[in-house]
Amino acid sequence: MIRKYAVIGTGAIGGFYGAKLQKAGLDVHFLLNRDYEYVREHGLMIKSAEGDFHLPQVNAYQNVNSMPPCDVVIVSLKTTDNHILSQLLPHLIKDNGVVLVLQNGLNIESEIAEIVGHKRVMGGLCFICSHKVGLGEIHHLDYGAITLGDYQENYQACGITSRMKDIAEDFKQAGISITLTVDLLLARWKKLVWNIPYNGLSVVLRAKTNEIMMNKYSRDLVEKLMNEVAQAALVHHRVITQEFIKKMLDDTAKMTPYSPSMKLDYEAKRPLEVEAIFGNPLRVAQQADLEVPRIYMLYQQLKFLDYSNSIEY
Amino acid sequence: MIRKYAVIGTGAIGGFYGAKLQKAGLDVHFLLNRDYEYVREHGLMIKSAEGDFHLPQVNAYQNVNSMPPCDVVIVSLKTTDNHILSQLLPHLIKDNGVVLVLQNGLNIESEIAEIVGHKRVMGGLCFICSHKVGLGEIHHLDYGAITLGDYQENYQACGITSRMKDIAEDFKQAGISITLTVDLLLARWKKLVWNIPYNGLSVVLRAKTNEIMMNKYSRDLVEKLMNEVAQAALVHHRVITQEFIKKMLDDTAKMTPYSPSMKLDYEAKRPLEVEAIFGNPLRVAQQADLEVPRIYMLYQQLKFLDYSNSIEY
Repeated sequence: MIRKYAVIGTGAIGGFYGAKLQKAGLDVHFLLNRDYEYVREHGLMIKSAEGDFHLPQVNAYQNVNSMPPCDVVIVSLKTTDNHILSQLLPHLIKDNGVVLVLQNGLNIESEIAEIVGHKRVMGGLCFICSHKVGLGEIHHLDYGAITLGDYQENYQACGITSRMKDIAEDFKQAGISITLTVDLLLARWKKLVWNIPYNGLSVVLRAKTNEIMMNKYSRDLVEKLMNEVAQAALVHHRVITQEFIKKMLDDTAKMTPYSPSMKLDYEAKRPLEVEAIFGNPLRVAQQADLEVPRIYMLYQQLKFLDYSNSIEY
Repeated sequence: MIRKYAVIGTGAIGGFYGAKLQKAGLDVHFLLNRDYEYVREHGLMIKSAEGDFHLPQVNAYQNVNSMPPCDVVIVSLKTTDNHILSQLLPHLIKDNGVVLVLQNGLNIESEIAEIVGHKRVMGGLCFICSHKVGLGEIHHLDYGAITLGDYQENYQACGITSRMKDIAEDFKQAGISITLTVDLLLARWKKLVWNIPYNGLSVVLRAKTNEIMMNKYSRDLVEKLMNEVAQAALVHHRVITQEFIKKMLDDTAKMTPYSPSMKLDYEAKRPLEVEAIFGNPLRVAQQADLEVPRIYMLYQQLKFLDYSNSIEY
């Protein structure tokens, strides 16, 4: 059986992975918005460090009602657009299909479970550096691995399921490096250890990762924020070790200078994913009466900047 | 006796008050740096909401060795230049004279006491909105009152001294509103309640006071920062009440939109007064093992921004 994939959000993430899947012979259907006319005519162009490729023709849709029911619905919108999902997903997912969430942040799967039921959701964490640079055109700069985890109610760890393996097969066939995790929630918290300090501070300090790591004050603040994330993860009984934090710091210090997605969004005056990446983890801590003052302060600063960025003084 | 005044730092603060004192007939001597040639030729121009005035001739000096010994040496440099004071003050101050510190921050008087002895220092807090706009030219936009307090070793409250009254008389004669305080250290902490949140956040959030107060997230962060300042003041046994904090918030919300000095410094790529306003209070808290995570985080952010502002990427 060739699985049918839908991609909701044909940008840096969905455009890249969707194009790779189609190139590998899978049946992929792209929902588009502003790019619809262009992509229907010209397809998708992927400029990649691993080799450029062009798909002259793709299944492009402007309206979800024209799309076929799919086995796997990849959600790769910005989380700030997730409010449209309750309209889209029920039409698109087969009864025994699954929504694969490729987004940053926390509690995304449980929000989507409220739409499609908790048996039809899984999550993937993308370690990738890619940007949409124009209509139907995506630049893939580096990395690209996905950590895939299945979801069940309340993020109980659910082992390696057969549908995970099936989807992983498709992705591997498409040349995408994939790791299976038995504990999606732990994987999400681990990704937050990186995303919370670097996405947040890159906006507030107008700085790339290397600049943040070269200054002793901001580097120490990164470490303190990482430790607050680790404390918050304990509320969910997920343990993040000091070794993991040290590795994140060391790896980032060695990394090519990088502008996190939130910095690019801020500079382009697009909405920031503040609630998914900061608000949801913060509320987990608050509900357990755990103080995470630095995450809270960064959240407040980003809420201000997101708002002031959206208006002209 | 007509007291002899020296002004070290003829900018927004020292230029304005010094000119007012000279205009009232006092004997004022200005130490200048980049403005020396211009001011020697053209004097000082004050554009003020209370009425413009021009002093065509002032006692202008480029070198402290040419200046006469003075009764009152007003220090109104940016605190980031205070390292030059150990060279300047001993030449300038009469044996029974006093250094009047008109600067923001904490522990400024005790640093200067190390140079001139703890019996020859007092402090003033300026509630003024003024900027230096060009060579020898100062714009006074609003306010202008000074809270004056005498200093003795370790900031023990020392009541209203006779030299305070003398200096207050001179300032009143010059039309400067002046309040005497029996407790300089309390006055400094109270000013920090305003300076720490608004100076800091105006830089980090690139925002004026009104923008900070209109957004519920940043407004709440201001209040949390003010409460941390109040906690730190308790280390010095100085009590800042909730009523005072509420009044600061309400007054600022009602104030004409204002760019704090640190924001102007940041925009002009001048050094920021991070250590005087943030570092010194922070170290008071740290020495008492008091956690003030938000002040600390703001300090770290400002240290980063101050540094990155000083270099070109």
